[in-house]
Amino acid sequence: MAQKNYCVIMAGGVGSRFWPFSTSKRPKQFLDLFGTGRTLIQMTFDRMCKVMPAENIFIASNSSYKDLILEQLPEIKPSQLLLEPARRNTAPCIAYATYKIASLCPDANIVVAASDHLILKEDEFVQSITKGLEYTSTHNDLLTLGIKPSRPETGYGYIQTDGESDNGVYKVKTFTEKPNLEMATIFLESGDFLWNSGMFLWNVKAISEAFDLYAPEMALKFRSGMEFYNTPAEQGYIDKIYQSCTNKSIDYVIMEKAKNVKVIEADFGWSDLGTWGSLYELSDKDEDANVRQKGKLMLYDCKDNIITLPEGKLAVIQGAEDFIIAETDNVLLICKKDQEQRIRDFVNETKVQMGDEFV
Amino acid sequence: MAQKNYCVIMAGGVGSRFWPFSTSKRPKQFLDLFGTGRTLIQMTFDRMCKVMPAENIFIASNSSYKDLILEQLPEIKPSQLLLEPARRNTAPCIAYATYKIASLCPDANIVVAASDHLILKEDEFVQSITKGLEYTSTHNDLLTLGIKPSRPETGYGYIQTDGESDNGVYKVKTFTEKPNLEMATIFLESGDFLWNSGMFLWNVKAISEAFDLYAPEMALKFRSGMEFYNTPAEQGYIDKIYQSCTNKSIDYVIMEKAKNVKVIEADFGWSDLGTWGSLYELSDKDEDANVRQKGKLMLYDCKDNIITLPEGKLAVIQGAEDFIIAETDNVLLICKKDQEQRIRDFVNETKVQMGDEFV
Repeated sequence: MAQKNYCVIMAGGVGSRFWPFSTSKRPKQFLDLFGTGRTLIQMTFDRMCKVMPAENIFIASNSSYKDLILEQLPEIKPSQLLLEPARRNTAPCIAYATYKIASLCPDANIVVAASDHLILKEDEFVQSITKGLEYTSTHNDLLTLGIKPSRPETGYGYIQTDGESDNGVYKVKTFTEKPNLEMATIFLESGDFLWNSGMFLWNVKAISEAFDLYAPEMALKFRSGMEFYNTPAEQGYIDKIYQSCTNKSIDYVIMEKAKNVKVIEADFGWSDLGTWGSLYELSDKDEDANVRQKGKLMLYDCKDNIITLPEGKLAVIQGAEDFIIAETDNVLLICKKDQEQRIRDFVNETKVQMGDEFV
Repeated sequence: MAQKNYCVIMAGGVGSRFWPFSTSKRPKQFLDLFGTGRTLIQMTFDRMCKVMPAENIFIASNSSYKDLILEQLPEIKPSQLLLEPARRNTAPCIAYATYKIASLCPDANIVVAASDHLILKEDEFVQSITKGLEYTSTHNDLLTLGIKPSRPETGYGYIQTDGESDNGVYKVKTFTEKPNLEMATIFLESGDFLWNSGMFLWNVKAISEAFDLYAPEMALKFRSGMEFYNTPAEQGYIDKIYQSCTNKSIDYVIMEKAKNVKVIEADFGWSDLGTWGSLYELSDKDEDANVRQKGKLMLYDCKDNIITLPEGKLAVIQGAEDFIIAETDNVLLICKKDQEQRIRDFVNETKVQMGDEFV
């Protein structure tokens, strides 16, 4: 059975939210954000290896990250890479993965996972994925992983279920964008809402039928390449068609429209690590609630900061409260934690005023 | 006349107060603190060159700074260096300079100047020094430069005059240590007090008589080397006797005891640059009262900071108020301006915990 289980790890993000720690040259998924010695994409790969053979795991990313991926995941062969010649959101990327995997195994079950999320409880994760794969091997449904919410989080999308579970699998009523706090509190209290993790499970038949129905043009493009996938002609074919694909998410193109969308409730210590704040919350803290990520730190009268420096660098910091202090070789960022949503603007202004070398 | 005018610039300080910008390897006097392209010792040398020939200017410092001095002052010949094999405060250093200069010019006038002070009005400085040298060429007095105080500064020592000036030259009544604010306010209002600049002028006769009287042992030691000074044997002789010299200041050994101490009132925009605060006060500020010393800076919601980064480094800083943010290659310091007196302790603790490489 496991031989029919495949995974595509989406690693095309260029996330500037952890700038300067993450840059377009080395986005979040390629960073060891927790100082554990493994980057996020490495941890994602390690997790999936507990569910299926390494050779069934594919990595989709922008072609510019090819070397970085092969360096960080030496177990991966170049044939397991899906190299996107242009940034085109998740729908084209998943269509590509669907037909490439279909050409290897027409009745494959496929897990679609992000490369840059945090999962704290690996055993529960493996259980959820295993359960989902069992479900998709016998149901032509589009399955999402919904995370049991623990707080009225306004940074996530929500999935509303119909409240009736078939062995932990619910029918999806609606997908909801990031709510305000009032709405998020109602969602949390109702018990019918789950966080949208952006992880999907389905079999080749279910997802290719959905593409045929809701994105027939895209389906045709990638289906027409079946003879080239997993041959030396694959990249040439993709390079030819990819640019013309619609720049839309799988949620928009399929999940919000399809009738056979189900959600499996999961609880495995998940975070999309979308913000410094979430990284702060999830990290170990010292007695003054400082997160000391990297670097040699001497802190005085400091509290509630998250601090990360280049290896070997020393910082003596006095009187800092509630700051993100993040440094790379050529950039120092100091920003109040509650103002981090402005970092994206700072990066853009920096680009305009100082040039590309820093961003 | 000018050929009989000599100067010794004291450059042995290891000041840790501007750490990490200043370190024991490169103390304050060797730094371009204002980003003007000239270090403090270079500016001191430039100023003295307006008063006397470059070959009459001597630099006294710890022997470990020899290369740094010759690099920063290529006009100086090794024979113009007084290299101290050990740190022994100002009295031994000035005794050494006295007899070394005496061996070249027994009736020299000598200016003793610090290497790490700021002087904003060079013309007034030149006038004051010229006037002082004229005075010492005809009077066997020990002349100090007293700065007309502009505020009740508690960071400086004060000189009390008898209030009666002989053409701007006053008799000194007392030397006073750093006062508290109440006392400093009284000093300022009385009009009889001047800031002690630590700059001295005298002729060889006056200062060597004072050494004979108040520090006869030290006088003997350095006088006994007269035959070696300005010969290849000089350093060997100094290395032999220096260690055994008393570790005391010229103020303590002579100025506070001698009867013929005079002070010349001066006003040339002087600061001893003893603190980040003084550097902040003296530097140009942006519209939010930030001093942007070095580095490429993008500041948001920042005010009253002093920021200095390594050349080429970018900092994006949001929400910082009243901070010193100073970075070198391997150290980042962030400290509230009003806590800077603690930096010395931070440095010591850092040394203990992290080792010498950072301090």
